[in-house]
Amino acid sequence: MNTHYWIWYPGDFELYHAMKQNFSRVERGMGWPAYWKSEGFRNRVIFRRTYDLQSESEFTVYSDAVGYVLAGNRKYPFGKKIRCSSGETEISIHAACIETFPAIYIEGNEIYSDGEWMAEDYDKPPVNAGYSRYFTRLDQKPSRWEYSERIYDPVNVSSVGNGVLYEFETELTAALEIRCRNGFRPLTVYCGESREEALDTVNCYYSCSPDKNTGRCPRCAVRFAYIPDCSRDELEVRAVHQFIDIPVRAEFYSSDELLNRIWNVAAHTFTLCSGVFFIDGIKRDKWIWSGDAYQSFFVNQYLMADPDINRRTLLALRGNETMTTHINTIVDYTMFWLLGVRAHYDAYSDREFVSMVRNKMTALMDFCEGQTDENGFLVGRPGDWIYIDWADLDREGPLCAEQMLFAQCMKTMAWMYGLFGENEKVEEYETRYRGLCSRIDRYFWDEEKKAYIDSYVSGKRHVTRHANIFAVLFEIADERKQGLIMEHVLRNDRVPQITTPYFKFYELDVLCRKGYLAEVLQMIREYWGGMLDRGAVTFWEEYDPEVPDDQQYDMYGDRFGKSLCHAWAASPIYLLAKYFVGLQITDGEKGEYRLEPHLEYFSFLECTLPVKDRQLNMVWDGENLTKNWFDSIEDSRIE
Amino acid sequence: MNTHYWIWYPGDFELYHAMKQNFSRVERGMGWPAYWKSEGFRNRVIFRRTYDLQSESEFTVYSDAVGYVLAGNRKYPFGKKIRCSSGETEISIHAACIETFPAIYIEGNEIYSDGEWMAEDYDKPPVNAGYSRYFTRLDQKPSRWEYSERIYDPVNVSSVGNGVLYEFETELTAALEIRCRNGFRPLTVYCGESREEALDTVNCYYSCSPDKNTGRCPRCAVRFAYIPDCSRDELEVRAVHQFIDIPVRAEFYSSDELLNRIWNVAAHTFTLCSGVFFIDGIKRDKWIWSGDAYQSFFVNQYLMADPDINRRTLLALRGNETMTTHINTIVDYTMFWLLGVRAHYDAYSDREFVSMVRNKMTALMDFCEGQTDENGFLVGRPGDWIYIDWADLDREGPLCAEQMLFAQCMKTMAWMYGLFGENEKVEEYETRYRGLCSRIDRYFWDEEKKAYIDSYVSGKRHVTRHANIFAVLFEIADERKQGLIMEHVLRNDRVPQITTPYFKFYELDVLCRKGYLAEVLQMIREYWGGMLDRGAVTFWEEYDPEVPDDQQYDMYGDRFGKSLCHAWAASPIYLLAKYFVGLQITDGEKGEYRLEPHLEYFSFLECTLPVKDRQLNMVWDGENLTKNWFDSIEDSRIE
Repeated sequence: MNTHYWIWYPGDFELYHAMKQNFSRVERGMGWPAYWKSEGFRNRVIFRRTYDLQSESEFTVYSDAVGYVLAGNRKYPFGKKIRCSSGETEISIHAACIETFPAIYIEGNEIYSDGEWMAEDYDKPPVNAGYSRYFTRLDQKPSRWEYSERIYDPVNVSSVGNGVLYEFETELTAALEIRCRNGFRPLTVYCGESREEALDTVNCYYSCSPDKNTGRCPRCAVRFAYIPDCSRDELEVRAVHQFIDIPVRAEFYSSDELLNRIWNVAAHTFTLCSGVFFIDGIKRDKWIWSGDAYQSFFVNQYLMADPDINRRTLLALRGNETMTTHINTIVDYTMFWLLGVRAHYDAYSDREFVSMVRNKMTALMDFCEGQTDENGFLVGRPGDWIYIDWADLDREGPLCAEQMLFAQCMKTMAWMYGLFGENEKVEEYETRYRGLCSRIDRYFWDEEKKAYIDSYVSGKRHVTRHANIFAVLFEIADERKQGLIMEHVLRNDRVPQITTPYFKFYELDVLCRKGYLAEVLQMIREYWGGMLDRGAVTFWEEYDPEVPDDQQYDMYGDRFGKSLCHAWAASPIYLLAKYFVGLQITDGEKGEYRLEPHLEYFSFLECTLPVKDRQLNMVWDGENLTKNWFDSIEDSRIE
Repeated sequence: MNTHYWIWYPGDFELYHAMKQNFSRVERGMGWPAYWKSEGFRNRVIFRRTYDLQSESEFTVYSDAVGYVLAGNRKYPFGKKIRCSSGETEISIHAACIETFPAIYIEGNEIYSDGEWMAEDYDKPPVNAGYSRYFTRLDQKPSRWEYSERIYDPVNVSSVGNGVLYEFETELTAALEIRCRNGFRPLTVYCGESREEALDTVNCYYSCSPDKNTGRCPRCAVRFAYIPDCSRDELEVRAVHQFIDIPVRAEFYSSDELLNRIWNVAAHTFTLCSGVFFIDGIKRDKWIWSGDAYQSFFVNQYLMADPDINRRTLLALRGNETMTTHINTIVDYTMFWLLGVRAHYDAYSDREFVSMVRNKMTALMDFCEGQTDENGFLVGRPGDWIYIDWADLDREGPLCAEQMLFAQCMKTMAWMYGLFGENEKVEEYETRYRGLCSRIDRYFWDEEKKAYIDSYVSGKRHVTRHANIFAVLFEIADERKQGLIMEHVLRNDRVPQITTPYFKFYELDVLCRKGYLAEVLQMIREYWGGMLDRGAVTFWEEYDPEVPDDQQYDMYGDRFGKSLCHAWAASPIYLLAKYFVGLQITDGEKGEYRLEPHLEYFSFLECTLPVKDRQLNMVWDGENLTKNWFDSIEDSRIE
C-alpha cells in the first residue's frame, strides 16, 4: 500500500503546533504565553484532485472536521465508502473546523491522501496540500503530536532535609512518573536543571503534583527532582523522556578528549532543543525565536541534516501571507527569517520549499521596505524592537548592524528571483543591494577607527564587534576593510567582548573563515570547557567565566532564570564540522560537497557527518585519511 | 454589585460564533460549511487598565485561557485572589488560547471586568474590550451561547403508514425530545418545515436519532416530525424550542385582518431568523449573508430595535481588518456591509460602533477601489461573484446596478468622514461620488428607453428593474429621470417582474417613497397573502403564485430546497411601519422621530413601535389618533 498521509492546508499544521509550543511556557505555576502576535490557521478549506481511473475504485474520507465529499456531482458524508466508476472523476472535499486546522485522511487503493492533492482556502490560488511523515496512520490526530518515549531511572537518590532528591544521568524533557508504594497520596515535586534549583522550593521554575490515576507529572525540563516530606523507601520515581526521534547522523571522536566532550554535550543540548520546532531552550522560553532558529539551521545541517524541522520552524515563525508585525516583535529576527530560507536552501537545495514561501518572502521584504528612513536605512516602526544582541550598542538613529542584515536580505531576494529565472527582479535587487552597501559605507564606515560604527547620528562613533562581524560574514566590507576590521576590531581586546553564545557563533564563524583556527579552537576549549568544568551536562544560554559559581544560574534578575540547555550554545558542532573536519555541502540536491580538513590540530580524528542521504565517515590516523560511506545511521556509528 | 462582564478582544466573540453559525448547516446527514473565507479570532491578547484606588482592593481573574496577571510588578496566576494597595496600580492580563478566543472575567468590588478595559492583540493600537450583555456570570463560557428554551407539545399527532406524524403549532428551531415509554430503543426522526418534507424520508433535510441518555435530537428547523416504525402510544414527543430572547417591541392590529396576519407571520419569521446573528433562514442556509442582513437591519429597527444583533452581525460579516476576499464571495454583499453600517447608525446613532469599525470601512473601500476598470467602474476580480439578484441581467462588462451601490458606498464614506469631522476626506469622497454618478449617467442612461441599462458593453441595451430601483432608492437619478423610471420601468408591466422577496423589498420601498401606497398594500396582500393561502406559518425564501402547489417547496433543483422561513420575506413589517404607520426615526440617540401615518387605508389601527428605549403606542379609531408611551414592553402589549 502506498503511504497515505493526513493532509491539510500547507502551513496550518505548523501554525497550530507553533501556538501549542509558544503557549507552553510555565513559570512557577503560571502560564506565560509568548508575547507576540500568534497567527491562526485556516478554518475552512477545500481539497481537490482529479483522477483518471482505469477501473472502478473505492475510497473513504475521514475527518474530525465538519464537511462533505463531492465526487462527480454527488455529495457524500465523511466516513462512508464511496465508489467511483472508471474514467475522469473530479473529487473535492469540503472541511471546516474551529478548534484546530481541518485535516483529512483518505483511504483507498488508487484514491488516497498525499501531498499531490491541492488545497484551497477561499483566498489564494490552489496550492499543494501540507502533510508530515509523522502522520501517516488513520488512528492519529494531526493536532496531537505523539512523542517517542524513553524511560530513565534516577542515577542517584539521596535524602535531603525531610525529603528525597532524585538525579538523572542528564537533562531531559520528561514526564516524571511517581508511584507511592503504600498507595496514592498528594505530593509536590520540585524540578530543576540544577541540584540547587530542585532544592529551592520557592524559586524553582517547575513544581507539580502527580496525577492521581497515572502518577504522571506534566512534561518539563528536568535533571533533578526533589520531593519534600517523604522517604526514599516510600516512592518509586522514574522519568519518561518524551522526544521527537530525529536521528543524530554525526559523530566526532578525536585525540582531544575535551573537544570530544564538548561535541557530545553540544549534540545532546541541540537534540533536546529540536522538537516539533527549533526552540531556544527546554526549560525557558520553550519559544520559537527566529534569530535562535537561524543558527540552529547551521548546526542541524551537520548533526541531523533534517530539512523537515527547518521547514516546520520557518513556517511557524513566518505566519500567514500578510505581514503586520515583526517576527517575535524583533526587526532583526524578521530578517533572519529571510536569511534562514537561504540557509535552508544552501543545505538541502529545497527549491520546492522556496517556491512555497516566495510570496511570504516578498511580503516580508515589502513590510521592511516600508519602514525605512530618508536614506533607505531600515529603522522599524515606533516601538519595534531593534535587538541584534544583549550588548551596549549605540542605538541612536539607524543601527549599523541592522543595515548589514538589511543588505543581506536584498542579496537574498536577488538570489531568490534568480532561482526562478526572474532576471529583472534580480537586477533590481542587486542594484538596491549595491546602493544600500554604499550608503552603509558612506554613513557608518569610520576610516580613523578602521571600523563600522554603531550609529552616525549620535556623533559618538561607538565601535562594537557586531556590525563589523556582519560586515565580514556577509562580505559587505571590501577586502581592505575586512583586513582592517580583523585587526582593529575582532582581534582587538579593547573592543568589548561578545558575552552571549548567540553572537559568539557569528564571531567564531568569521574567525574561522579568516583562518584563525587555532584561536577558535582555544576559545571553544576555554568557553565551552569552562561550562563543563562547572558541571554542565548541556550548554547554557549565557556563560561568563568571571561570575562566581553560586551566581552562575542567575539571569534576568531571577535566581534560576538562566536556561541551562540552550540551542544557540551548540555552535561547536557547526564550527568543528565545517572548519576543522572541513566539510561543506556545495549541492544539497546532488549530495556534492567539498572536504578540506584541518588535521594539524589532531593526532587522530574519526568523524561521521551527514551528506544528503548517506553518512560520510572519515578516519585520520595521523598519517592517512580514509573515507567511507554508510547508508544507514546505525552502521556509521563510531565504535 | 456593578455588572461584571466577560471580556475579550472586540470582534473575536462574533468571529468565533460566526464560524459556529456558518458551519452549522446540515443537509441529509452531511455538514455543509459556508463556502467562503472564515476569519479567525485572535489567540493571544492582553487586557490592560490602570486604577487609582482610594483604598486597598481585592480582585480575582478567571479564564480558561493560558496566562497570568501582572499587577504592579508582580505576576499572579488566574483564579487566585490578588490584593492591591491604594494608589495607582497598572494591571495587565495576558491570555492565550487556541481552540477559542481568550476571554477573562474579573471579580472584585472596584476592580472588575467591563468594556472600560483596553484590549491589545500585538498588532493594532489598544481598543476597548468587547463584551456582551448575555455574558455577565462567572459560571458562563463565552464560547457557548446559552439559548432560552420553551417547550412545545405537538398540536396534532396522527398515524401515517407504519409510523406517527407529529405537528407543532408553528415552525420552531427546536431540539426534539423523545421518550419511549417502554425504555430506550433506536429510532430515526424525520423533520420537515412542511408535512410533505417530514413524510419524505429520502428527501427531507434533517433526520436524526435521539441521544440515548437525554432523548434529545440536535436543534433544527422543525414544524412536522415523522417517526416510522412506531405507534402513537409508545412515544412521548415534545419540541424544546431554543432561541435568543430578543424582545419583540412592536405590534400591529388593524381593520384589515389579512394585513394583521401578514404582520404576525412576518414577525414570527423574523424572530426565528434573529439569533446570535441575522441569518437567511432557519432550515437553510443558516448562514450569515450580508445582503440578507442589510434588509434585516431595517426590519429590526421597527420590530425589536435591538442594536446588539446588528453589531454582532456586522462584525461577523466583515471579519478582520485586512480584506482579501469579498464578503460571502459577492461583490455587492461587500458593499451592502458598508451601507449596513450607515443603516445601523441611522437607526441608533451608534457613533461608538462606527468609530470601532471605521478602519474596517476604509480597508473595505480600498479593497473595492482596487478592482475598478479604466472608467472607475467596479468590476471585481476574475471569479468574483456579481450577484445583485436571481434575475436575467445582462452581465457583460460592468453592471449598472453594481455601480449604483458603489456610488452609494462613496456617499457613505463621505458621511462617515463627516461624522468624525474630517472635511478633506468628505470632499474627496463627495467629488468621487459626483464623478462616478456622472459616468454612470454617461454610460448607462439610455434616453430612448428612459431607463438605466444593465450593460453598455454588450450593445443589447437591456433594461431590468434592478439598477433603476437603486437609482431612485439612492437618489442617483435626478428628479426628471426618477419620474421617467417610475413610469417606464417600475410601473411598466413589460419589464420583467422581480421574483424574489429580496429585491421586492427594494422595489416596494421605492414605490412607497414615491407615494404608490395603495399599490404596495395590494401587492403585500396578494404576494404575502398568497403564501398564507398556501398554509404558510412563516414566510418563504421565494414565492411564485404561478407554480403549482405540489412544487411550491422546490428550489435549486431540490425537492425541499426552498427555505420556508426566510428573513428577507419579513419586509411587510418595515413597509407597514415606516410608510403606513409612518414612523421615521430622525435621531436614534435622542429618540427623535417623525410620525406621518397614512390612516386612509384603515378604519381602525392600533400599533406599537419601538422608539429608543420606549414603546410608542398609537390608536386610530377612525376619527382620532391618540398616542401613548410605554416604558415596558409588557405594558405596551395590545390586548
